[in-house]
Amino acid sequence: MVTNPETIASIGENEALRRTVSRLNGGDFTIVGSGDDSAVISTTDDRFVVTTDTMIEGHDFRLDWSNFFDLGFKAVATNVSDVAAMGAKPTSLVVAIAVPPTTLISSLEAFADGLTAACTQLAPGCAVVGGDLAASDTVFISVTAHGALEGRSPVLRSGAQPGDTVAVAGTLGRAAAGLALLESGNRDAVAAYDDFVAVQLRPTPPIAQGVAAAESNATAMLDVSDGLARDAARIAKASAVSIRLNRRDLQGFSAMVEEPAMAIGADAFEWVLTGGEDHALLATFAPGASLPRAFKPIGVVAEGEGVWLDDELLPEGGWDSVRGDR
Amino acid sequence: MVTNPETIASIGENEALRRTVSRLNGGDFTIVGSGDDSAVISTTDDRFVVTTDTMIEGHDFRLDWSNFFDLGFKAVATNVSDVAAMGAKPTSLVVAIAVPPTTLISSLEAFADGLTAACTQLAPGCAVVGGDLAASDTVFISVTAHGALEGRSPVLRSGAQPGDTVAVAGTLGRAAAGLALLESGNRDAVAAYDDFVAVQLRPTPPIAQGVAAAESNATAMLDVSDGLARDAARIAKASAVSIRLNRRDLQGFSAMVEEPAMAIGADAFEWVLTGGEDHALLATFAPGASLPRAFKPIGVVAEGEGVWLDDELLPEGGWDSVRGDR
Repeated sequence: MVTNPETIASIGENEALRRTVSRLNGGDFTIVGSGDDSAVISTTDDRFVVTTDTMIEGHDFRLDWSNFFDLGFKAVATNVSDVAAMGAKPTSLVVAIAVPPTTLISSLEAFADGLTAACTQLAPGCAVVGGDLAASDTVFISVTAHGALEGRSPVLRSGAQPGDTVAVAGTLGRAAAGLALLESGNRDAVAAYDDFVAVQLRPTPPIAQGVAAAESNATAMLDVSDGLARDAARIAKASAVSIRLNRRDLQGFSAMVEEPAMAIGADAFEWVLTGGEDHALLATFAPGASLPRAFKPIGVVAEGEGVWLDDELLPEGGWDSVRGDR
Repeated sequence: MVTNPETIASIGENEALRRTVSRLNGGDFTIVGSGDDSAVISTTDDRFVVTTDTMIEGHDFRLDWSNFFDLGFKAVATNVSDVAAMGAKPTSLVVAIAVPPTTLISSLEAFADGLTAACTQLAPGCAVVGGDLAASDTVFISVTAHGALEGRSPVLRSGAQPGDTVAVAGTLGRAAAGLALLESGNRDAVAAYDDFVAVQLRPTPPIAQGVAAAESNATAMLDVSDGLARDAARIAKASAVSIRLNRRDLQGFSAMVEEPAMAIGADAFEWVLTGGEDHALLATFAPGASLPRAFKPIGVVAEGEGVWLDDELLPEGGWDSVRGDR
């Protein structure tokens, strides 16, 4: 006997929403959860941190590369990373998703499972507290994430001072390796280096390190979403300083992606400098400060402007792969 | 000399975003605004209220009916209404919008002006504090709104008690009239009753009445987004009570939409019972409570279940226009 698989259209949006919500975790900060006009969230002090990000089919993901679990996981990971980059603890998310009515209910359930898995794994205590399910021709996901500062000052991009240590927590270049592997169409390489593909599809940013950095009095911080070179330039600009990166300190990162780079003829060091989707945390710390263990020093803050790799000023638009190869 | 109008593609997303953000208001609760990884918002106590809603071209709006100013205005209005319905004061919004790259920058600026106008007019002190601009084939808008409870308890849907007064602030049926006028294709009627069309395109919910109701110890509240009958049923179900509406008390509302109803051969009373997009606030108050002046009594809470119009039980799925016409 063949049963038609259930779609959102066949069971209706209300039932689809009910089944999805039932797969979400509770959350330690939820005073009133979904089901009323709004949710009510505990803040631990009298402020909260908020960020939003959007993922659109064909622009930000491809359904032949990502499944719905991946999408849910990544949607949470990328947003709580922006919360962590303020030195805050993620507390809650609201998630809007629009999908074609023909979407299988099992896909929506997998999406919810991905949301829950990412909360549980990356930001324990944080939960999806509200959302919206709508119909559209292509898949559209919009997430807003909130965090608690627990009495700390937010760590902005603008606080870096000359003499500060520049340090990074998390990985660099792995997500870029994963994307390049997928784009290569080389199935053997994709299978051989599926760990890197996994970082691209389901990034695991070092969320707890955001609070750790704030507690170590990080002077500036952001999450590396557009590549080390471009995001370091954002701190440099906001703080009116220059960032001096040491190539030697970055070679440990590029060694980690050397194998897949060789497999598809790519430049491992370029991935490290320009690959952003690992969502590492890039922070600056006062000279002599004791860095949280997960942060690895990669350079120093200096007077001036721009981002330098040893004595070379990196171009503003990011890493130039032609020059970088020299 | 003819100049090509600027599009998002021609000036780039960064410049488009910069121009849009420059048209937003500041906000009384914004500690850190847009430009960092997250915004930081003041809560006035140790909780915040959050809600999210999505508007999708072709499903929730048509660009031949709504301009971008309208879309910005409505996106704010519908979301701060859900904040108000908790008894909270709207403090901040984040807004994600995806548009085709060919969209005129002037359209995006008009969208920002609509956001700002709605904040200023409906929820003074509230502001857009962050957002996201992305490319997509159709227009997609996702808004998350936040509010402060200022020490009050949130007003849920579940607190109505038998004997409570049922009351409504705002208008009923006007937005439905506006939609019916647009759908009629009757241009003369649309022009003659453009006030009603305006309520559909740019609703002006009674936001401040949410706090007023909470201060008068409203026992339950929601915003009427799917029609009085359906939304009253939500309070009835959540509170395990029945809601008894008095037809006589609703006739003042239907008198206000009688003229456009006659112009296009529609049922004014049906608009009042089933038209939701005015975003009126529906609340219940303890017997003998002094209602805020904007709230008009329309019925009582009783034992039992369901929503009744005088002695007639309304069908669960909402108002049945065939039965209603008898």
